[in-house]
Amino acid sequence: MSSSIEQIHNVITCKAAVAWGPGEPLVLEEVQLSPPQSHEIRIKVVSTSLCRSDLTAWESQAIFPRIFGHEASGIVESIGKGVTEFEEGDHVLTVFTGECRTCRQCTSVKSNMCQVLGLERRGVMHSDQRTRFSIKGKPIYHYCAVSSFSEYTVVHTGCAVKVSSAAPLEKICLLSCGVAAGLGAAWNVADIAEGSTVVIFGLGTVGLSVAQGAKLRGASQIIGVDTNPERHEKAKVFGITHFINPNDFEEPIQQVVKSITNGGADYSFECIGDTGMITTALQSCCDGCGLTVTLGVPKLKPEISAHYGLFLSGRTLKGSLFGGWKPKSHLPSLVDMYMKKEIQVDDFITHNLPFEDINKAFNLMKEGKCLRSVIHMPK
Amino acid sequence: MSSSIEQIHNVITCKAAVAWGPGEPLVLEEVQLSPPQSHEIRIKVVSTSLCRSDLTAWESQAIFPRIFGHEASGIVESIGKGVTEFEEGDHVLTVFTGECRTCRQCTSVKSNMCQVLGLERRGVMHSDQRTRFSIKGKPIYHYCAVSSFSEYTVVHTGCAVKVSSAAPLEKICLLSCGVAAGLGAAWNVADIAEGSTVVIFGLGTVGLSVAQGAKLRGASQIIGVDTNPERHEKAKVFGITHFINPNDFEEPIQQVVKSITNGGADYSFECIGDTGMITTALQSCCDGCGLTVTLGVPKLKPEISAHYGLFLSGRTLKGSLFGGWKPKSHLPSLVDMYMKKEIQVDDFITHNLPFEDINKAFNLMKEGKCLRSVIHMPK
Repeated sequence: MSSSIEQIHNVITCKAAVAWGPGEPLVLEEVQLSPPQSHEIRIKVVSTSLCRSDLTAWESQAIFPRIFGHEASGIVESIGKGVTEFEEGDHVLTVFTGECRTCRQCTSVKSNMCQVLGLERRGVMHSDQRTRFSIKGKPIYHYCAVSSFSEYTVVHTGCAVKVSSAAPLEKICLLSCGVAAGLGAAWNVADIAEGSTVVIFGLGTVGLSVAQGAKLRGASQIIGVDTNPERHEKAKVFGITHFINPNDFEEPIQQVVKSITNGGADYSFECIGDTGMITTALQSCCDGCGLTVTLGVPKLKPEISAHYGLFLSGRTLKGSLFGGWKPKSHLPSLVDMYMKKEIQVDDFITHNLPFEDINKAFNLMKEGKCLRSVIHMPK
Repeated sequence: MSSSIEQIHNVITCKAAVAWGPGEPLVLEEVQLSPPQSHEIRIKVVSTSLCRSDLTAWESQAIFPRIFGHEASGIVESIGKGVTEFEEGDHVLTVFTGECRTCRQCTSVKSNMCQVLGLERRGVMHSDQRTRFSIKGKPIYHYCAVSSFSEYTVVHTGCAVKVSSAAPLEKICLLSCGVAAGLGAAWNVADIAEGSTVVIFGLGTVGLSVAQGAKLRGASQIIGVDTNPERHEKAKVFGITHFINPNDFEEPIQQVVKSITNGGADYSFECIGDTGMITTALQSCCDGCGLTVTLGVPKLKPEISAHYGLFLSGRTLKGSLFGGWKPKSHLPSLVDMYMKKEIQVDDFITHNLPFEDINKAFNLMKEGKCLRSVIHMPK
């Protein structure tokens, strides 16, 4: 029996939530999923949460039909050739930006931007620029080389992280992207100092994870800015000491922040995905050593614009992708912290939904009514 | 005798190069200079060099008549009330951004942006928003609260630094701004690591001082970008290993840099004062940990514009004013390094001019024919 026939025999048919066009409700379809290729694993998805960047890509990007989802946990179902790091039954988190451990970036202590398995934008797998999903032979594109809105998926071994089997997969899927991104922005990228002042624009899961990170570093003031008044109470749970709803103030937000912080915050974080807000974030920082970290993926204008004087007077603008974590090297320790109750994850979960209700998760996020909706696959 | 009469008696009449309007040749005029007020000193200027920002302000700013000059050395002639740090005869460097040693910024190890004696833009003294210079009672404005294009000037004690009397004042005036700014950008702001790659846009005194700083840190590649082909030979003296004249290439400069550096430099420095070039500097940096430092004061468009993706993929943009040095705390050690021949200063001096030829210095800089012209006052 040739290997190609073996592979045909190993194709799985399973349910996946397929997006057929921009903004169109997902449709649960029977899809065919190839077996894992060399250095890939096939995962039975256990839980997957909806992240804002899924929504942004679903509303705006041109690659369809597509299976979204990248924040997920699962169990290894089978392994491809050459895979030694995983075996069937391993518990894993997926990651949207991988770690090959050998490229210039992976071998630098200063970077987590793997040159081989970095953010995949074309809807295919890194290794062969093809899809593993299809419906009756027609390819269905991936998202970030993860595509977890499916009962099963295939990922590169560099885009999966083995975690303790004691950790609850239905919760820790949040560490696969949003919560880790926020904590890392606070700890790795900004390296928040004790007693410092922080302002966070956008109090979704990422912004509130920055708040949690700032609180754990002993920041003295953690100011949250959000136009959604419902975020105020929840924000307190994660350490926000001052809540600013821009609609409640006539003066510019940067003035409000400056008066609270005696001249400007030490750190500001843009977690909305609004390039215009990056300027406000820079203006909200103090002269001399103010640091603005941008985490958001803009929905509209991709150009950042700011007066040079903001920089010449000592400010820094720094981007943060996945909070500076090298996913495979660092995620297991975050899971350990969760198990020791050193970090909060459960409080971000506002909704639990069965797979067939996945469109509700999209609606909740569009309406600003959730932090994280976790979608649970059939057992 | 009342103190006001004393002060009238202490007015000095001396020669100063007065700029009467934007871009108009300076005129050597007899000016009246008040005695130093509380916490000020009056300095007999010995040598003063022309910095690009004098030229930029002379061409563009609206505050006239004015005495430019901020990069200077001199000898204390008299001291105001409450001055204990200086006495007559002390050798000093002036600084365009002061250090009060007590404000939030001065007491932070991360900042050199003094809130009390920072960059003065209105042409007056920090303490009373008035001038010390006049001609027949009409005020003549200051520049950066230094105004060294005069035989004598008055500065706040926080804007002067006492240096060893063994150091040659006619040389070390360059450490008062340009050379220190470049070295500090390399050492304090970027903190260049050994073996790393560096690209510098603009090979004037500041850019070449960055190169010197990079060389002393053991950078493996130091790429200089300048449209002036005459800069090539001089650049080698300061450590430039690759010279790029953009006019010699059809492809974008960032592509040229990326091919030399295997994917992008670790650090890029914008030393031209062209906000458009900041984007190129960001694009010339590597993903993951590329750092762009902007030092220039733009002559035209003050807005920096860049695609958010440059940041999200791991780049940082950082401003540098006076290279992050706290002037009073750190400049004496730079003078010591010069005396021990650990840093080069003399090689930046391409022209020595008597005071009456000060307009030649402006012309040489406009024509790109000098690095530093040092103007020597009559003895």
